[in-house]
Amino acid sequence: MMQMPPKFSKRQLLLSIGKTAGAATMYQAMTALGFAAESDYKGSPQLTGAPKGTRVLVLGGGLAGMTAAYELRKAGYAVRILEYNPRAGGRCWTIRGGDVYTELGGATQKCAFDPGLYINPGPWRIPYHHHAVLDYCKKFGVRLEPFIQVNYNALVHSTKAFGGKPQIYRHVQADFQGHTAELLGKAINAGALDEQFVPEDREKLLDALTRWGGLTKDRTYGPSLQSSLFRGFEVAPGGGLMPAQKFSTPMDYKELIASGLWKRISAGQDIEFQSSIFQPAGGMDMISKAFEREVKTLIRYNTKIVKIHQDDKKVRVTFKNSDGTGQEQTETADWCVCTIPLSILSQIPLTVGPAMHAAINAVPYGSSVKIGLQFKRRFWEQDEQIYGGISYTDTPIQRIAYPNSDYGKPGKGVLLGAYLWEGVNAYEFTAMSPAQRIRKAVEYGNLLHEQYAREFDNGVAVAWHRVPWVNGCYGHWTDPMREKHYNNLCQIDNRIVLAGEHASFIPAWMEGAVLSALDATERLHQTIVATAKTA
Amino acid sequence: MMQMPPKFSKRQLLLSIGKTAGAATMYQAMTALGFAAESDYKGSPQLTGAPKGTRVLVLGGGLAGMTAAYELRKAGYAVRILEYNPRAGGRCWTIRGGDVYTELGGATQKCAFDPGLYINPGPWRIPYHHHAVLDYCKKFGVRLEPFIQVNYNALVHSTKAFGGKPQIYRHVQADFQGHTAELLGKAINAGALDEQFVPEDREKLLDALTRWGGLTKDRTYGPSLQSSLFRGFEVAPGGGLMPAQKFSTPMDYKELIASGLWKRISAGQDIEFQSSIFQPAGGMDMISKAFEREVKTLIRYNTKIVKIHQDDKKVRVTFKNSDGTGQEQTETADWCVCTIPLSILSQIPLTVGPAMHAAINAVPYGSSVKIGLQFKRRFWEQDEQIYGGISYTDTPIQRIAYPNSDYGKPGKGVLLGAYLWEGVNAYEFTAMSPAQRIRKAVEYGNLLHEQYAREFDNGVAVAWHRVPWVNGCYGHWTDPMREKHYNNLCQIDNRIVLAGEHASFIPAWMEGAVLSALDATERLHQTIVATAKTA
Repeated sequence: MMQMPPKFSKRQLLLSIGKTAGAATMYQAMTALGFAAESDYKGSPQLTGAPKGTRVLVLGGGLAGMTAAYELRKAGYAVRILEYNPRAGGRCWTIRGGDVYTELGGATQKCAFDPGLYINPGPWRIPYHHHAVLDYCKKFGVRLEPFIQVNYNALVHSTKAFGGKPQIYRHVQADFQGHTAELLGKAINAGALDEQFVPEDREKLLDALTRWGGLTKDRTYGPSLQSSLFRGFEVAPGGGLMPAQKFSTPMDYKELIASGLWKRISAGQDIEFQSSIFQPAGGMDMISKAFEREVKTLIRYNTKIVKIHQDDKKVRVTFKNSDGTGQEQTETADWCVCTIPLSILSQIPLTVGPAMHAAINAVPYGSSVKIGLQFKRRFWEQDEQIYGGISYTDTPIQRIAYPNSDYGKPGKGVLLGAYLWEGVNAYEFTAMSPAQRIRKAVEYGNLLHEQYAREFDNGVAVAWHRVPWVNGCYGHWTDPMREKHYNNLCQIDNRIVLAGEHASFIPAWMEGAVLSALDATERLHQTIVATAKTA
Repeated sequence: MMQMPPKFSKRQLLLSIGKTAGAATMYQAMTALGFAAESDYKGSPQLTGAPKGTRVLVLGGGLAGMTAAYELRKAGYAVRILEYNPRAGGRCWTIRGGDVYTELGGATQKCAFDPGLYINPGPWRIPYHHHAVLDYCKKFGVRLEPFIQVNYNALVHSTKAFGGKPQIYRHVQADFQGHTAELLGKAINAGALDEQFVPEDREKLLDALTRWGGLTKDRTYGPSLQSSLFRGFEVAPGGGLMPAQKFSTPMDYKELIASGLWKRISAGQDIEFQSSIFQPAGGMDMISKAFEREVKTLIRYNTKIVKIHQDDKKVRVTFKNSDGTGQEQTETADWCVCTIPLSILSQIPLTVGPAMHAAINAVPYGSSVKIGLQFKRRFWEQDEQIYGGISYTDTPIQRIAYPNSDYGKPGKGVLLGAYLWEGVNAYEFTAMSPAQRIRKAVEYGNLLHEQYAREFDNGVAVAWHRVPWVNGCYGHWTDPMREKHYNNLCQIDNRIVLAGEHASFIPAWMEGAVLSALDATERLHQTIVATAKTA
């Protein structure tokens, strides 16, 4: 039996392997021990030696700002958060019935969802390897439930394939894999790969392809028990003297390849979307509220920053009420963690060097639109047995996502009727009025679910470029942009350090915001301690 | 926009397509409409015209028996259930702290799990297409939560491969698929499949393989961004100025093929295990208890059937207390639905014809052992980020399954430390004492999780062949056996009809039990009505 030393010794062991045998060996050892480094999260930082009475001002009360504030206060700093909204959490946001939201341009929506129903306009899932977010959820008691990423009974839809008729996910999945396995088997049998495999390995590979592809013993993919056990039966096995089972017939391979629908079946294999993946029970803002409970006394709400000034001794931030009323006021501190999105920060006078300025101005913000639709009943469950998960379509709405909670519940239901992500569609939807967006979402969604026309109740639409306090969805970096600006963005500029998903390599994810805040916090602390020693 | 008539017209439409254009066209139409026939469940039966005062005796208060009783009472029959145990539900069973269980051979276990922790020794998941079970859950208000079948961060383990070190599921999954895609790409480029594809289709297929396999632009599978986005990074992307990301290195293809670990990665694609798949929140017996609430007044508990006699007018059942005490008693009825497992029924004198007798005696019962292990902490989550799902091993325990609820909860945790299914292992474990089984489960599990040795607390083990009231796990049919006996088993023999998972084509599943009961109930009702008319 394998016997290993306890947890902390294991880390030390790995580090010593790393030092003596190199990173590759260490990684092998990590894998062998059952865990690989999916995150740079090393646990909550232990910051010691904070100079007494040192004040840090945190700009922005989203996840990055609250993470920084929480850790800095714990380290002994005097912390204040200035937040634009009357609530904390930023993009970690949930809209429920009764909520009122006014976007840029002035359109106001009052959400009319039934009690308990909601959409998350921003982040909506947490992968198992987003250790920092999961750790804070655990620490703050946020209850998590599985997010269904892959639903084999959901739909994949192309207006240009199969006569525009939605296909079932598992048919595309099984048939792509099955036909591909059959094809490779044929190539192997034809001797195309004889140079690469000795006969024994060839046989093993053929066996693997047979099981994995749902092939028959003669290695073909067609109507059979094997393929039906993946793609489903035409008549399913029943009880007693019910009608006998019938195999189903796979789709044509060439038509399937030409359809492009195969693009949808690997999404659940992406590291960011693999199971287990989670959502907080009750809405993503359960995370915001949990952080907010911890740092509430530090937050000044409804505060619009209009100027950020620093000199060698202090940071001075000028602000007004977020509705533009009231006098300009100032708050000073010794240091500053600024988590304001670059799309907003680039509009605020700020005393930092030219390199950071250039970086702040360089990063465009990604576009995204999410539309929540309430229906009179959960027809996707009742008529089509689609319990949670995502359907895909090549229409502008891109996706329909079904609620991952309250399965089988009677009454009304809310689904995510559109999740537009990048591309010209997102901009087109942003240009529309909320009512138009919702109308379009119902019109396109009706191509996947004929029940839409009858069952639609009401909706709410968030176009991120029109969200007043962020003007976009997330920092949309490119590789050349990163090369030129990223390090400059993240360096501490005198007494100011930036944090947020835009200051991370995991943009648009909460984990990016939190890791960025932890990294910025640790570096700032080190700088503060070093500065105090030399002072 | 596609406009369809409402739900019931849709069914009528389909039936008319089926009548005029044949079953294949109807199936195409069903698929086009977004639903295919995965089940023979047509909804709760509408049984009308039950002759007044007709009595039906149901033997066995598991899911089949309670389904039959519920529907027959609704139809107007006078129904009684005789049940061996002091509880209803049969194999739909949950063991919690404080429960006492004595197996054949006399070994008694008192479960010492902490409050709220449990194992389901029998069924533990409900596929999305098990419509009958899901429908009763909905009707009876059973709260469902997702069962995690596939966990990309769980382990796959072979004592004969990779030095016996557990591998991570997503590495096996990504590397098998990636290497396979690369290989097929090579074969296509080498011209091996030129006869089957015109150049344009070849290019489309190559594009598909590239995305799906995580290949680079030059169509190779190796350390790259593309493969790391499936299998994970060696150093993950971080926040701020954390260390730069590093790609991970795939496993060797031949070693992977030889390892047999690829067998584990298609389980989640099987129709029976595809997402969405569910468990009742709080234990599988939430379903038993929900049925029991409906039919409780009909049940006589602690009743051991010793003889079942019928003539042309009546069915007379003789029974004792299940502990063997008390006088023999009898209950008579006009008709009987017998859901007693064949393994038990074959030991009871029963007046049926030779064909049904032969069928009852023909079916062996499958072997299975489940072992629940309580640990001092949920180390699989805390140390290894395994949240729910299943690890696979070639050791006798076969699987370790992690709890699919209370993610991140502090305190003790219970996992399924062994799920042996068929094969000599299951018999060997059945032969052991419960304490030995548990010891073995800890010993083998320790090969996957080094924390076992330190964190183990207590366990409980159920070997189905030693369960007194079933003597096995499920009716283990073979094709030749079905051919010879299945119809004889399911026919109504004079006044008796059998039901249960053993009288279905979905053995070992609750859906089989329920569908079998519905089918038997409908046929029995038709017979009763016809008999009354001719009487």
